[in-house]
Amino acid sequence: MGKRAIFIGRFSPFHLGHLEIVKEIVEVEDEIIIAIGSAQQSHTKKNPFTAGERLLMIRNSLIQEGIDLQKAFLVPIPDIFRNPVWVSHVQSLCPDFSVVYTNNSLLRRLFSEARIQVKSPNLIKRTVYKGSYIRLLMTNGDKWAHLVPSSVSKIIDKIEGVKRIREINHKSD
Amino acid sequence: MGKRAIFIGRFSPFHLGHLEIVKEIVEVEDEIIIAIGSAQQSHTKKNPFTAGERLLMIRNSLIQEGIDLQKAFLVPIPDIFRNPVWVSHVQSLCPDFSVVYTNNSLLRRLFSEARIQVKSPNLIKRTVYKGSYIRLLMTNGDKWAHLVPSSVSKIIDKIEGVKRIREINHKSD
Amino acid sequence: MGKRAIFIGRFSPFHLGHLEIVKEIVEVEDEIIIAIGSAQQSHTKKNPFTAGERLLMIRNSLIQEGIDLQKAFLVPIPDIFRNPVWVSHVQSLCPDFSVVYTNNSLLRRLFSEARIQVKSPNLIKRTVYKGSYIRLLMTNGDKWAHLVPSSVSKIIDKIEGVKRIREINHKSD
Amino acid sequence: MGKRAIFIGRFSPFHLGHLEIVKEIVEVEDEIIIAIGSAQQSHTKKNPFTAGERLLMIRNSLIQEGIDLQKAFLVPIPDIFRNPVWVSHVQSLCPDFSVVYTNNSLLRRLFSEARIQVKSPNLIKRTVYKGSYIRLLMTNGDKWAHLVPSSVSKIIDKIEGVKRIREINHKSD
Amino acid sequence: MGKRAIFIGRFSPFHLGHLEIVKEIVEVEDEIIIAIGSAQQSHTKKNPFTAGERLLMIRNSLIQEGIDLQKAFLVPIPDIFRNPVWVSHVQSLCPDFSVVYTNNSLLRRLFSEARIQVKSPNLIKRTVYKGSYIRLLMTNGDKWAHLVPSSVSKIIDKIEGVKRIREINHKSD
Amino acid sequence: MGKRAIFIGRFSPFHLGHLEIVKEIVEVEDEIIIAIGSAQQSHTKKNPFTAGERLLMIRNSLIQEGIDLQKAFLVPIPDIFRNPVWVSHVQSLCPDFSVVYTNNSLLRRLFSEARIQVKSPNLIKRTVYKGSYIRLLMTNGDKWAHLVPSSVSKIIDKIEGVKRIREINHKSD
Repeated sequence: MGKRAIFIGRFSPFHLGHLEIVKEIVEVEDEIIIAIGSAQQSHTKKNPFTAGERLLMIRNSLIQEGIDLQKAFLVPIPDIFRNPVWVSHVQSLCPDFSVVYTNNSLLRRLFSEARIQVKSPNLIKRTVYKGSYIRLLMTNGDKWAHLVPSSVSKIIDKIEGVKRIREINHKSD
Repeated sequence: MGKRAIFIGRFSPFHLGHLEIVKEIVEVEDEIIIAIGSAQQSHTKKNPFTAGERLLMIRNSLIQEGIDLQKAFLVPIPDIFRNPVWVSHVQSLCPDFSVVYTNNSLLRRLFSEARIQVKSPNLIKRTVYKGSYIRLLMTNGDKWAHLVPSSVSKIIDKIEGVKRIREINHKSD
Repeated sequence: MGKRAIFIGRFSPFHLGHLEIVKEIVEVEDEIIIAIGSAQQSHTKKNPFTAGERLLMIRNSLIQEGIDLQKAFLVPIPDIFRNPVWVSHVQSLCPDFSVVYTNNSLLRRLFSEARIQVKSPNLIKRTVYKGSYIRLLMTNGDKWAHLVPSSVSKIIDKIEGVKRIREINHKSD
Repeated sequence: MGKRAIFIGRFSPFHLGHLEIVKEIVEVEDEIIIAIGSAQQSHTKKNPFTAGERLLMIRNSLIQEGIDLQKAFLVPIPDIFRNPVWVSHVQSLCPDFSVVYTNNSLLRRLFSEARIQVKSPNLIKRTVYKGSYIRLLMTNGDKWAHLVPSSVSKIIDKIEGVKRIREINHKSD
Repeated sequence: MGKRAIFIGRFSPFHLGHLEIVKEIVEVEDEIIIAIGSAQQSHTKKNPFTAGERLLMIRNSLIQEGIDLQKAFLVPIPDIFRNPVWVSHVQSLCPDFSVVYTNNSLLRRLFSEARIQVKSPNLIKRTVYKGSYIRLLMTNGDKWAHLVPSSVSKIIDKIEGVKRIREINHKSD
Repeated sequence: MGKRAIFIGRFSPFHLGHLEIVKEIVEVEDEIIIAIGSAQQSHTKKNPFTAGERLLMIRNSLIQEGIDLQKAFLVPIPDIFRNPVWVSHVQSLCPDFSVVYTNNSLLRRLFSEARIQVKSPNLIKRTVYKGSYIRLLMTNGDKWAHLVPSSVSKIIDKIEGVKRIREINHKSD
């Protein structure tokens, strides 16, 4: 029997760096859970999109990329604001998994203490494939669409996501 | 443009009655969101399985049934315990939808007040295709597997779900 | 200086029994706070109306009755689900008060332990001036409007409150 | 039929700038709801006063100003910490409203997405009619009373509010 | 190195049956954690006493019984209302433990799934050494003090606990 | 009858400055409650240790110092994030107390408003006997063990606490 891996992020938005990691995991592991953190949030500077919008961005990107959906789970994870129970919280909302992909040091620590294997995904072009950078470009009215899958930019256009981000950040047109 | 529909239940467990409704919706609508309610619960009499276990049961059943996963979203929805904000809560965790399938009178009411279209799915063999009845059979040590997709009974066997339910209900072997 | 009194209920709906108590308090005390409990709830069997709807019912009844609004505060109080902090919770949401009107034995106890004076309002026609009875009449399609101020029945009519209650209680027309 | 408008703030404390907006709204609209945000907070640097204290400040200011209380609702709104359900949360605690007065870009965005009309109130003397500035004056022991209605300064004096703010900000006498 | 055991209850109130179990554990194990469940509750029919009152009852009983306090931890545990994270919640509030004493089937199940050893304490005189029975005696004005350590009855007398229970249960003197 | 005092901190970790205050209180008062704040937190920069770990550190330090455990209560207090009910929250989780030792200006204020006596403990070597300073030393790989009781450093060594803190703060070995 193969392994089911989990990849946790906030995906605000899902970008090409995320996509590379997903492709890496799908190649190595049997199945992937993409867990969408801070799922209760939206319309904040760090998480401008709802969990449902982020879920749709990821689903469409996987289809676009030709990734077999039978190997992928997309699961929104609301914050629970208590580190000691966070791993159990994630485990209860997801199908059973045996390996975690993350470069976040807190997550690495929490899963390690729960005796779950942690692997570090390769990060490519980390300075530009980065949510905070992409949101900054959007806020400033700069080009950003080349940093995300075209499935993502289509959704952001449709929901007028850049306008939303600019308004949240007090940028008027 | 077609429609995306939502079907909300607790799926404790996902049974053949649920599956019939899913097939009905997939036939009529463009896409389906299967929303797993009371997602924060498990190990209770009403919700013995975790949201992750329920999600796996449904995913495997859809694959078994040959339903195209590109048309389906599976989304765990934790309770928020406040009816007035519940519709917004569901909307934020799911991709945008325009029609709800439910026979629950409270849900029907809440979505109607939010001006979202509600349809009643056909219920078949409602006396036996019913979560509470299936859990009762499990608790009493009676046959239940014929009431759920075989993908579901396989998972329940693997996680020793009947033993869990019997213990929660104070039934010793 | 006179006293400010608090009268706590769920007011689901505000009825003529409540109104009598309000009139009694307004006569005896300087000012009244009408605190609307379980304010986060609506669309339940016990609390079919939102706090905002209940607040409007009470406000309109006070105006109809000619009660001076300069002597009255209407304050929604969400449940906090922890008896030991409940009195502090109420105190923080309301202007300072020095006497409580209630016939509820738990509230009487909690305020007494906090060394706040508790008085028992006179209950008249307690068998019919009672929220649960009025909601039952509505559910059954019986006459109920004579048990509430006409300001209240007008609002319930306008929001189709009886239909809402019947639907929540699975009564079809 | 006329319109009911909502004006949302934290009112920490209610100052002359707020009062001007209230007067503007009362003139233009039929009724006003003054919604007191972050109602669960007190004794913080940003919200030193309880919701009850703030409610009393506003009520007394309206009376002092001769504003008809039959046209005004004062409603404490606790934070719910989830932007996607916040509009529903406010709607459930308040009587039905059809227009929002706010200059806050997040609120403007959230209400707009919920298809509720948003108007921008006129801000006068925005550099001094500003909660953070008034709290700073109080903390530093400077004159502040001329920036609030005298009804407000009377309450702050009575509850020794300046002492409270100075203590929260570690200023000893 | 020896073992640290946990014994979980609501202790409403701590009675002679509980004391026997504590003595059994102290004899067999190196250290005991007595975890006071539903710690956020008080003034309810099932949990009339605060966690602090229950903690004092237990502490005084241990001293009275001559149990070495260097071997005992008393820890209030608030409910978290989510079974899947409950074990982690308890683990985070208590010193590390390796064995659980409980006869509750849900707790037995939850700790077993977390691979923690569960033992069944001996229950003696289970019909009378039982919280619900003792609270019933108090409510009815019957004798109850012989069922609890005298340290416990002294505290209940001092805080007028029987009066509190009778009031919560609507029994007037 | 003597007095029971409460001493509230986060004890992240319990250091020699805390120990001095405990010894001062034990000398002056009859009994001491050591209340461990932010008990729901761990693995954060400010609170790297679980409440259970902190509780063990304190218990072992008291034993090491020869302080009579019959005079001491150790009580974890989760945050409630609402200042107006915080004092009631603490009171419900602890045995009754009549005096508070704290140098925190917010706590001083909250307890004073609840008419509970507040005393200021003597702070010695405040620049080094300080949690934030000790955590900084740990993060930087500097010597810290001389600032805490040896019972505390033993526990931190055993749970590899420094490694945990360094990882949370992104310091690799």
